Amino acid sequence: MNPGAKERNGKEWVKKAAIGRAAATLFDKKGYLETSLKDISEAAKLSKGCIYYYFSNKHEILYFILDVYMDHLLEGLEDELKRKTDSHSKIEFIMRRHLSLYNNKIPEAMAILTGANNLPYEYYRSIAFKQKKYSQLLADVLSEYFDGEIKMNKAKAISYIVFGMCNSIMHWHDPEGPITLEELSGICFSLFIGGIRQIKTGQGLNM
Amino acid sequence: MNPGAKERNGKEWVKKAAIGRAAATLFDKKGYLETSLKDISEAAKLSKGCIYYYFSNKHEILYFILDVYMDHLLEGLEDELKRKTDSHSKIEFIMRRHLSLYNNKIPEAMAILTGANNLPYEYYRSIAFKQKKYSQLLADVLSEYFDGEIKMNKAKAISYIVFGMCNSIMHWHDPEGPITLEELSGICFSLFIGGIRQIKTGQGLNM
Repeated sequence: MNPGAKERNGKEWVKKAAIGRAAATLFDKKGYLETSLKDISEAAKLSKGCIYYYFSNKHEILYFILDVYMDHLLEGLEDELKRKTDSHSKIEFIMRRHLSLYNNKIPEAMAILTGANNLPYEYYRSIAFKQKKYSQLLADVLSEYFDGEIKMNKAKAISYIVFGMCNSIMHWHDPEGPITLEELSGICFSLFIGGIRQIKTGQGLNM
Repeated sequence: MNPGAKERNGKEWVKKAAIGRAAATLFDKKGYLETSLKDISEAAKLSKGCIYYYFSNKHEILYFILDVYMDHLLEGLEDELKRKTDSHSKIEFIMRRHLSLYNNKIPEAMAILTGANNLPYEYYRSIAFKQKKYSQLLADVLSEYFDGEIKMNKAKAISYIVFGMCNSIMHWHDPEGPITLEELSGICFSLFIGGIRQIKTGQGLNM
C-alpha cells in the first residue's frame, strides 16, 4: 500500500477512475461485501486481468475511491477560505461546497459514509486522517466565529455535527422529490448559522 | 412474517430480547452480513435449535431488533407531547428523548442506522412506516412552531435533518472522550432551536 501515491497521468488515471466509479456505484447499490471483482469488471467493461493490473484486491479499490473523494473535498479549500474575509461567509462557503461536491459524486460520498469501516486498519487510518484534517478546517473557522471563546473540543464537536447534518441528507434525499438539494442546502445553512448566532449571543451553551 | 405480533409475555420475550441484544451487538461490531447464526448462538449462550425456535432466519432477528427499537421510540411519545403546552418545549423534549433513548440502546440504534437496508422489502417497509410516523410527530410540532406558515414537505425535511444531526453523533461519539452525550445533546438542541428561531423571525428561508 502506498497512500497518496496516485498517478493522475493520462490513460492510467482515466482507467483507474473508471474502475472506481463502477465499483462505487455497485457498493452503493449492492453493498461492499456483496460486490465481487467479477461484478466490477462487468460493470466497468474491463477484464479481471486489467483490474488486477491496477488494484491487488477489492479493498484497494475502495481505498482509491475514498482517498480520491477526500482529496476532492480538501483540494484548494484552505486557499479558498483564505480569500474570504469573515467567518460567516467561510462557514457558508464550506457548507454549500460540501453539499454541492456530494451532489456530483453520490456513490463515492455514500462509500465514505457507509464503507470506510470495511477497510483494513492501515488504509482506514489514512482516510480518517484526511477526514480529521477536513473537519479541523471548519473547527478553526468556528473558533474564529466565536472569537476564540470556544474550547477546541466543542468547536470540533460542532464541526462533526454540521457535517453529520449535511451528510444525513444523502441517506434520504430523492432527486426526483419535491425539494431540491439546493433548497436543502439552504435549510441546513440557515439552521446552522441561526443556531451558532444564538449560541454566540449568549442564549446558548456555556462554551 | 407478522409485523406487530410481539408477545411480551414473560420467559419467551426475555429470551427473544436476549437473542436480539446479542445479535445487535455483533451486527454493530462485525457487520450484519459477516455475522452468522452460529456467532449469535455463541454470544447469546443458546443452542442454534433454541434460536430457530424463536426466529426462522437472521433477517427475522434483525427485523425484531429494529421493530422493538422503533416501538421504543414511539411508545407514549404522542401522549407525552400532548401534555406539553408549547411547541418549543415539545421540540426540546423530542430531541433530548431521542438522544437519551439512543444512549441506552447503542447497538440497536446503530442497527437502525446501518442495517435496515439489509431487510427484505416487506420487513423494511414495516420499519420505514414506523420511522415515517416518528418523524411526522416532529414535523407536526414544527408546523405548530411556525404557526402553520411552513409547507409540510419542508417541515418533514427539517425533521429528517434534525434526526440526521442527532443520529450522526452515534457514528463518532466516544463515551470515554472529553464531551458527554448530555453536552452534545445540549449543543444539538441549542443549534437547532437557534436555527429555527432565526428562520421564524424572517431572516431565514422563504418557507
